[in-house]
Amino acid sequence: MSAAGIDYSQLYSASLPDPAPRWAPFPKYYFIGGNNDPEQIPIDGLIEAASSVLRREGAKLAIYNLGLGPQGYPGLRQFVADKSKRQRGIEAPVEDILITTGSGQGLDMISRLLINPGDTVLTEEYCYQGALNRFRKLGAKLLGMKLDADGIVIDALADQLAALKAQGVTPKFIYTIPTVQNPTASVLPLDRRHALIALARQYNIAIFEDECYADLLWDGIEAPPALYALDPGCVIHIGSFSKSLAPALRLGYLIAGWEIMRRLLPLKGDSGTGALDQMVVAEYFSKHFDNHLAHLNGVLRGKLAAMTEAVEKEFGSTAECCAPKGGIFLWIRLPANVDVRKLVKPAAEAGIVFNAGPEWAVSPDNSSNCLRLCFAMPSEGTIREGVAELARVCYEQTGIPVRSGNVPR
Amino acid sequence: MSAAGIDYSQLYSASLPDPAPRWAPFPKYYFIGGNNDPEQIPIDGLIEAASSVLRREGAKLAIYNLGLGPQGYPGLRQFVADKSKRQRGIEAPVEDILITTGSGQGLDMISRLLINPGDTVLTEEYCYQGALNRFRKLGAKLLGMKLDADGIVIDALADQLAALKAQGVTPKFIYTIPTVQNPTASVLPLDRRHALIALARQYNIAIFEDECYADLLWDGIEAPPALYALDPGCVIHIGSFSKSLAPALRLGYLIAGWEIMRRLLPLKGDSGTGALDQMVVAEYFSKHFDNHLAHLNGVLRGKLAAMTEAVEKEFGSTAECCAPKGGIFLWIRLPANVDVRKLVKPAAEAGIVFNAGPEWAVSPDNSSNCLRLCFAMPSEGTIREGVAELARVCYEQTGIPVRSGNVPR
Repeated sequence: MSAAGIDYSQLYSASLPDPAPRWAPFPKYYFIGGNNDPEQIPIDGLIEAASSVLRREGAKLAIYNLGLGPQGYPGLRQFVADKSKRQRGIEAPVEDILITTGSGQGLDMISRLLINPGDTVLTEEYCYQGALNRFRKLGAKLLGMKLDADGIVIDALADQLAALKAQGVTPKFIYTIPTVQNPTASVLPLDRRHALIALARQYNIAIFEDECYADLLWDGIEAPPALYALDPGCVIHIGSFSKSLAPALRLGYLIAGWEIMRRLLPLKGDSGTGALDQMVVAEYFSKHFDNHLAHLNGVLRGKLAAMTEAVEKEFGSTAECCAPKGGIFLWIRLPANVDVRKLVKPAAEAGIVFNAGPEWAVSPDNSSNCLRLCFAMPSEGTIREGVAELARVCYEQTGIPVRSGNVPR
Repeated sequence: MSAAGIDYSQLYSASLPDPAPRWAPFPKYYFIGGNNDPEQIPIDGLIEAASSVLRREGAKLAIYNLGLGPQGYPGLRQFVADKSKRQRGIEAPVEDILITTGSGQGLDMISRLLINPGDTVLTEEYCYQGALNRFRKLGAKLLGMKLDADGIVIDALADQLAALKAQGVTPKFIYTIPTVQNPTASVLPLDRRHALIALARQYNIAIFEDECYADLLWDGIEAPPALYALDPGCVIHIGSFSKSLAPALRLGYLIAGWEIMRRLLPLKGDSGTGALDQMVVAEYFSKHFDNHLAHLNGVLRGKLAAMTEAVEKEFGSTAECCAPKGGIFLWIRLPANVDVRKLVKPAAEAGIVFNAGPEWAVSPDNSSNCLRLCFAMPSEGTIREGVAELARVCYEQTGIPVRSGNVPR
């Protein structure tokens, strides 16, 4: 037998994505990815929760889905129902709640439910890359909805829908992150929520509401009820525990009525979401959700302040920041002549990674001078250093910003 | 706004599977599904493991994939490497090991890696339904390999491959469960393993080795080394923790060289396998694997004995059982004139579910008188009762078996 193996190149499927690179540890200034602050993981609380829930229900692990059906651990579904009612105004029985393996699985399932190749899908003009990629992969044609500081501009959307209709096009769905929009971190006001729903009903368009970040609102900021709360008849809702607790636990949820749910369930191809993750989070959050979030949001707001101050200090008037109402990221606009894509490689050489605007936008045209910086994982010190380094790289590549603080470079 | 919602029927994708039914609790005699014995879940051990691993590494949960890359928690990969070397003869560095969200995810990924619509795939003639369904869904044409009491009949396979070649057909891969075959529970002898690999090399066919059940071998039975151990150059290997510990924890693994692994990684679309499941199992099994399996296998062997005795008592000479060398299921052949598909509904009405042979076979022709009964979850008493009930239903529908024990019906 020869040392070499068979020739796999003859065997691969015709439609494979590019191969993965070898994994490498994070660089020093890691400003991408929905990571959380390692110091805010409630280790004692999780240990206590694991002990108590395993003692009470551990034997059920022997059975697929704990022997309790494919929609997830009932304790976690009940927690989602309670939290969604109390904080988002959603009246949903546990029968309408599905625990997903991260909100990404919800994105996959709903995309698959609704998209035929060639379908038109509307998303906010600046939008979560993972959603854009999923929709594109299934052959959707994406159109951006104009945003301002409060989210979707309803008049512009109304005009856009009328113009599409005149062309014989009805979009399949509107994907929106109305509460802490990704990346602009706006919160859609109540009147716009009602107006959005009215448009969806007028044109028979589903609304896909992603509330991945809705738990991360700064103290004093009140979000209007979820779109699902206002009209469950035209909305499918997803949320996540990645941002409120920990993304390495793969836990999200989906809320929809049974007529939708029964169509979605066969698309959940993983024979259930990891049970220990579900059980421990249900046990912990059933007791400690409010305290945990109040503390976490205080820490995140402090990190945002550190980042905003650093951007002001290092970039001055050349950078225009959105004013996040919560979340873990800052969306920054540089002068129109800066193409941030040209900064990616030199920044990486300096140990900095960030999201270039076009990755987070439907069209690269109005986003090539934008960038997204995540602030939840790095310390405030690392944030300050990293932003200073990024400004230095930007100056070397583009000639701006010409000052760091009050000091010319 | 009207009470009814928008009309989703206009919005669904054109290619959806059938809707799911409402979930219902298990019936009394539940002889399907890869469930385990609830009494064998090591609750104290898992609590201790959760406490110790969370204390040491819990902060990493804040980061996707624990900040350690997409191949899984290193502690669990190291455990898989050690166990696979010690028990299956596999020399694989942790770089060649991927933790999957159940072995089902491995099946999905490898199917996607290798199958183009219209490709020919070889599987054992009686074969795990989940594999058959996945391959068919991607458009593969399935051909069965003849089995005897020791697994794949090599001479028949050699003839089959030569005949296919004469027709211009080369199968893409051979899917096999060589160690505790599902459903016949045979173990492929070493000489057949070498001969299978030689055929795969001769025809440039990949071998997809599923060792889902290889940890569940009865005391005194030695399995030859894994096919991957004998020739990693033509084998991709998967395994599972569902059978050795708990299926509600969604944990499996995949072993392949980097050239395959880099192609597979982009197909793992879940942003990582649940971290708590991975961490706790690594911590527990690193200390307790051998003891846990020795005990579990003793219990399972006892349940198999209860089932075999019950089948002998209730069905007598009308049922021919395979002689499992391990695992959690018994494959039973009834007289050729019995079509077990006709028993499914009346059995369900009596609270019994079982796998009809054609669900577990490439061709319904030679399997319609076969059935598969899983024995790991029910108690020995339930097994005895359920088999007696099944014999009664069978008699009512087909006139056999005419006796229960020595008593005419």
